[in-house]
Amino acid sequence: MIKLYSFWRSLATYRVRIALNLKGITADEVIDVNLMKGHQHHPAYRNVNPMMALPALLDGDGPILFESLAIIEYLDETRPEPPLLPKDARGRARARGLAQIVACDSHPLLVPRVRDYLEHQLQLPEATRMDWCRHWIAQALSALETHLKDPQTGIFCHGDEVTIADICLASQGAGARFYGVDMGPYPNVSRIIATCLELGAFASAHPLRQPGAPAA
Amino acid sequence: MIKLYSFWRSLATYRVRIALNLKGITADEVIDVNLMKGHQHHPAYRNVNPMMALPALLDGDGPILFESLAIIEYLDETRPEPPLLPKDARGRARARGLAQIVACDSHPLLVPRVRDYLEHQLQLPEATRMDWCRHWIAQALSALETHLKDPQTGIFCHGDEVTIADICLASQGAGARFYGVDMGPYPNVSRIIATCLELGAFASAHPLRQPGAPAA
Repeated sequence: MIKLYSFWRSLATYRVRIALNLKGITADEVIDVNLMKGHQHHPAYRNVNPMMALPALLDGDGPILFESLAIIEYLDETRPEPPLLPKDARGRARARGLAQIVACDSHPLLVPRVRDYLEHQLQLPEATRMDWCRHWIAQALSALETHLKDPQTGIFCHGDEVTIADICLASQGAGARFYGVDMGPYPNVSRIIATCLELGAFASAHPLRQPGAPAA
Repeated sequence: MIKLYSFWRSLATYRVRIALNLKGITADEVIDVNLMKGHQHHPAYRNVNPMMALPALLDGDGPILFESLAIIEYLDETRPEPPLLPKDARGRARARGLAQIVACDSHPLLVPRVRDYLEHQLQLPEATRMDWCRHWIAQALSALETHLKDPQTGIFCHGDEVTIADICLASQGAGARFYGVDMGPYPNVSRIIATCLELGAFASAHPLRQPGAPAA
């Protein structure tokens, strides 16, 4: 019994959806937590995830799993095939490091609670808030592009197999697209994201393919 | 040959210093990257870490390791004793999840590049910037406090052995202290941080014990 707390637009949940797909796991239940209506703050969800963020995952009797990268590592440890991390420690460090450029250095600056703070506490106009989001997306893309010029990069971020780095790169790409970031300066990033999206596991997990997503 | 790129005040580097100490590793060289003078933007350091953030670690011939959590996992895989993660997959997920509440949900909002953006691009006054930092520190502390009421918590965040969660909790505590966050609402967090700081590995890694730190 797998239960995923999800929202179409959540980029961190997109990552977990990709990992589930790659592992051949179908969630028995997908619970919609509407981030745009603030449902993550409801007491019922706060009991699920005290950080009031998505995603959260229930596997069997629980307890609830939280934080996208921790969930993906858990899925990789409990369902080892196909592996989502390289076999060698240095390769694993590189894949995790690339994943964390997305999940620690960039995406946390764009999440709903931060966008809400910019709008309501700081009263910043929309154009300024959009610049903010684009700035942090582009900063990480620039670092990722430099990393991906390394010969350790292959068809995917690290060699020729999908890793947690590709999962995070795909989520960064979806965020860049939401905010209209010019991908021109990031050809290696763009190539790998395009390759990922040719895989059903990535394509069917995409935010715009989820229930509730806008048609465009 | 271990080379650590460090700055006294960097909370992410504090985490790696703790992990090195716990593993009984002494860096052969500590290279100071003065974040307050912007030295992380120098081309020489950008070549080390394209994200222009601390820490970075060189172990032997390289390549350079980056992102604090990825570095700590690498140290744990290459020097398994004492382990920094629980043995069971669910325990590992919980320890990683708690670590990521700090490293993904809270600390990224306080790093120099974000504080600089608030000051220079958004021209926010100092009091507003301090409120920002305190807000995100407190949000994560509140979620961590709820998690730490769970019976899986022991002397440390997860059971009675130090894990990556305690390493991150200690860094969160140091950040809370820098910004004057009231720790009254977080007794479990405070107890575990105090227990950690009784250990030499944590105490000697503390920001205020590093070269360049202010005397107070």
